[in-house]
Amino acid sequence: MFETAELGRTLDKKTFAALEPQLRVRLLDVQERLRAAKVPVHVLISGVDGAGKGETVNLLAEWMDPRFISTAAFGPRTDEEAQRPFFWRFWRTLAPKGRIGLYFGSWYTEPIVERVFRDLKRCDFERRLRQIEAFERMLVEDGSLIIKLWFHLSKKAQRKRLEGLAKDKRTRWRVTAQDLKNLELYDRFAAVSEQALHVTSTGEAPWTLIDGEDARYRSVAVAEHLIETINKRLARGENQPASTSRKLVAPAAAPKVARGKKTKEVAHSAYKTILEAVDLSQTVDDDVYDDQLEGLQGRLAKTWRAAKQQRKSLIVVLEGWDAAGKGGAIRRVTAALDARDYRIIPIAAPSDEEKAQHYLWRFWRHLPPDGSVTIYDRSWYGRVLVERVEKFCSEDAWMRAYDEINEFEEQLIEDRIVVVKLWLHIDRDEQLRRFRERESIEFKSFKIGEEDYRNRGQWDAYLQAVHDMVERTSTTSAPWHLVPANDKRVARLEVLRLLCEALEKSSKD
Amino acid sequence: MFETAELGRTLDKKTFAALEPQLRVRLLDVQERLRAAKVPVHVLISGVDGAGKGETVNLLAEWMDPRFISTAAFGPRTDEEAQRPFFWRFWRTLAPKGRIGLYFGSWYTEPIVERVFRDLKRCDFERRLRQIEAFERMLVEDGSLIIKLWFHLSKKAQRKRLEGLAKDKRTRWRVTAQDLKNLELYDRFAAVSEQALHVTSTGEAPWTLIDGEDARYRSVAVAEHLIETINKRLARGENQPASTSRKLVAPAAAPKVARGKKTKEVAHSAYKTILEAVDLSQTVDDDVYDDQLEGLQGRLAKTWRAAKQQRKSLIVVLEGWDAAGKGGAIRRVTAALDARDYRIIPIAAPSDEEKAQHYLWRFWRHLPPDGSVTIYDRSWYGRVLVERVEKFCSEDAWMRAYDEINEFEEQLIEDRIVVVKLWLHIDRDEQLRRFRERESIEFKSFKIGEEDYRNRGQWDAYLQAVHDMVERTSTTSAPWHLVPANDKRVARLEVLRLLCEALEKSSKD
Repeated sequence: MFETAELGRTLDKKTFAALEPQLRVRLLDVQERLRAAKVPVHVLISGVDGAGKGETVNLLAEWMDPRFISTAAFGPRTDEEAQRPFFWRFWRTLAPKGRIGLYFGSWYTEPIVERVFRDLKRCDFERRLRQIEAFERMLVEDGSLIIKLWFHLSKKAQRKRLEGLAKDKRTRWRVTAQDLKNLELYDRFAAVSEQALHVTSTGEAPWTLIDGEDARYRSVAVAEHLIETINKRLARGENQPASTSRKLVAPAAAPKVARGKKTKEVAHSAYKTILEAVDLSQTVDDDVYDDQLEGLQGRLAKTWRAAKQQRKSLIVVLEGWDAAGKGGAIRRVTAALDARDYRIIPIAAPSDEEKAQHYLWRFWRHLPPDGSVTIYDRSWYGRVLVERVEKFCSEDAWMRAYDEINEFEEQLIEDRIVVVKLWLHIDRDEQLRRFRERESIEFKSFKIGEEDYRNRGQWDAYLQAVHDMVERTSTTSAPWHLVPANDKRVARLEVLRLLCEALEKSSKD
Repeated sequence: MFETAELGRTLDKKTFAALEPQLRVRLLDVQERLRAAKVPVHVLISGVDGAGKGETVNLLAEWMDPRFISTAAFGPRTDEEAQRPFFWRFWRTLAPKGRIGLYFGSWYTEPIVERVFRDLKRCDFERRLRQIEAFERMLVEDGSLIIKLWFHLSKKAQRKRLEGLAKDKRTRWRVTAQDLKNLELYDRFAAVSEQALHVTSTGEAPWTLIDGEDARYRSVAVAEHLIETINKRLARGENQPASTSRKLVAPAAAPKVARGKKTKEVAHSAYKTILEAVDLSQTVDDDVYDDQLEGLQGRLAKTWRAAKQQRKSLIVVLEGWDAAGKGGAIRRVTAALDARDYRIIPIAAPSDEEKAQHYLWRFWRHLPPDGSVTIYDRSWYGRVLVERVEKFCSEDAWMRAYDEINEFEEQLIEDRIVVVKLWLHIDRDEQLRRFRERESIEFKSFKIGEEDYRNRGQWDAYLQAVHDMVERTSTTSAPWHLVPANDKRVARLEVLRLLCEALEKSSKD
């Protein structure tokens, strides 16, 4: 889920200087209105070390009216705090109505850190997360606004940042031995945080990921997010809490500059959505392809047999642009499998019987029994892709779906099913080229129609939908793989390789 | 929480015969309208053995149009089912839109039974409950109506019923060895079920307790509940699911007979609310009282010292009618304690500072540190008593409070705090006598005013509020004790005894 906060978004000095004054004015304005509306706001500043949490707290304290802000940092519990239940110290410091509390640390720090160091059993960790969820819901239902910010840095960026601080005499003191030790635990920290964020990202109090690498981008993103969220809350009045429809991590909004009635998006130095970060330039030579294909198919046959003996099953979720080469990839996979072991489920419009049920019903039907493979050619992700883009279902429905899908896949994985999720990515030009090709070759022309051209018109909407899908449903146990497919053969090899790796990894569990 | 389903409600033959025809008509009517509205209804028939689950399924199938009902019973999983994730077999049998599914057993049976027999670890049990909650929420958000009925029998009634069945040649086959073994596990089964019901009784899909002892009462209660719940759901339209504000177990509605525009309540043979079941006739002689008082105070001093050495704390929640003798009871308790060990927190109207916070904030403030006692003279239960009755807060707010309070107390208990909850019960006449007495004795007259007489007018509303409070917040780890207090001395001895017992019990944990 953190991939989308590693796109390297930055903001140049000049743009930042132009933005700062108006951000400050708008922050003071929302503060003023919050006081009048008597809404308490709790801002949680959490995330990885070195991602600018402290700087952000300081900056916000500087930008806003300090009389109506209270900041609190939560380190290890004091004696007095240790003698009371977990939430006692947070209740003590909760901002009253009309004020903003900035919590550096918060109720997430202790359970996450203790879980990373295995001082907390999985069971107790999960119980704590549930308590946190109930605690936050209670506050929100009472009228509070809770804004949860997760500052993220890639492993590489975190190392760079800590090394930078350590090198400089003036900042060396900020890098503790613990920081360096935590860096070694980066992957474990990321996995534990991901779980915490997934469970506690609710409709009442969703998490927002902040790409922490660039200080200017980060500051503007945070300020914009605060202003937007508080304004939304104020529009609802004192005792009208947020809707409780569950949604997962909201994406960090791209910073926007309001100028009169127009809103202009600030230029980014880097990619806007995660698909644009996929390198489509890769190709593969004929003989290399033949060679590797054979090798990978053999490897897949072998690893699948081993998995089957362990009574495991495999689910392949294949998504991608029209004409991205899903069918061809499936044929290369099934060529390596025994026909009795797999089923391919093509997903088109639902039948009458399926329409009379919940949208997940038709996927549950086809779950593989132990020791078999189901390949879904398109899948439940239709809910957050085509159904979202084409407005076949309400926004509430597809927002809820992220959570429902995570829950569904978690149950599959718990049941020892290996889940591999693949998005075959091509660019617009390549898609057009393939459409034209299909039209010109008679035996392929059944594959192309007006609808395909219509879908092309929604390209940008799909880019955003795929981006959100990856952010909200790519988990440690069932990550999304974005497969470059401008060269079909690159994609086929990659798909085979990913299946082999997933099966091999699972055999170690 | 099951106390309220043990009040011995019955219905005589004649009343039942008068009710049956119109119940059947109304059931057919809701079925008809369900089909038109395309709402799927899932009715879960769960609870203790011998409480009439099977009879109820048969009766409903007989009373309704069988073409639009599907029934399913879930025993041990088949081979095919065992090879798929837990929810697979429930997905397979889910009733489609416009139909009613009657599930005998359901997704609750396996986890509860496995937990009772310790085949499921606490941690895995809690995870399963969470999955069930998510599963049900998903169905409801998609438009389903879920009606969850829990058939209850007291231990005594269950034994009587099984013995009755075993004695009769014609019904002996219905009593299995497993049934008799389960009876031995009654208390454990009750505790596990209580946890399951608390966690999964949500605003979307609340549990309803059915007093299973009397077949006629039970049948009418179930049918009435189905009709009422389905009508409510239909009033909201196809894709408008239930509100998601969380509420705990809804009380089984008293059966009502609709006659034209008037609704007449059917006569019960037994108590309507749990307070009426408290025996207020007990008294105690002077010398016995003096003797027992001294003995109990000594016992309390001793057990408290032992608890203190274990770094435990004690919270006493004292609630009761005006003039029920709370102050006098507190003095008898504190007389046995070291003044440095306890604090008494009288709860009156909140201060300005407290008003600027969530209603639980002021109770968190005063939590005892390890090794000390806090006596709350009135408490957080004000939310579901005076605030409910006097409409100081919205229905949504006090409905939510049951859950919030359970969560709060669970955290206290987890933190090794012993929580004792006492309701001092007197009847209306006794209260009036005490009010008059207070007015006539000069040094007591400050205790009485107009407001007290006004509160008396709300007697019946309080009866219902206390009943609901006990049903929804009396848990195995923090049960409610209803103390008969028409004789003040009986009440004082009982309070001391209950404190001693709670401390002694906790020392064994």
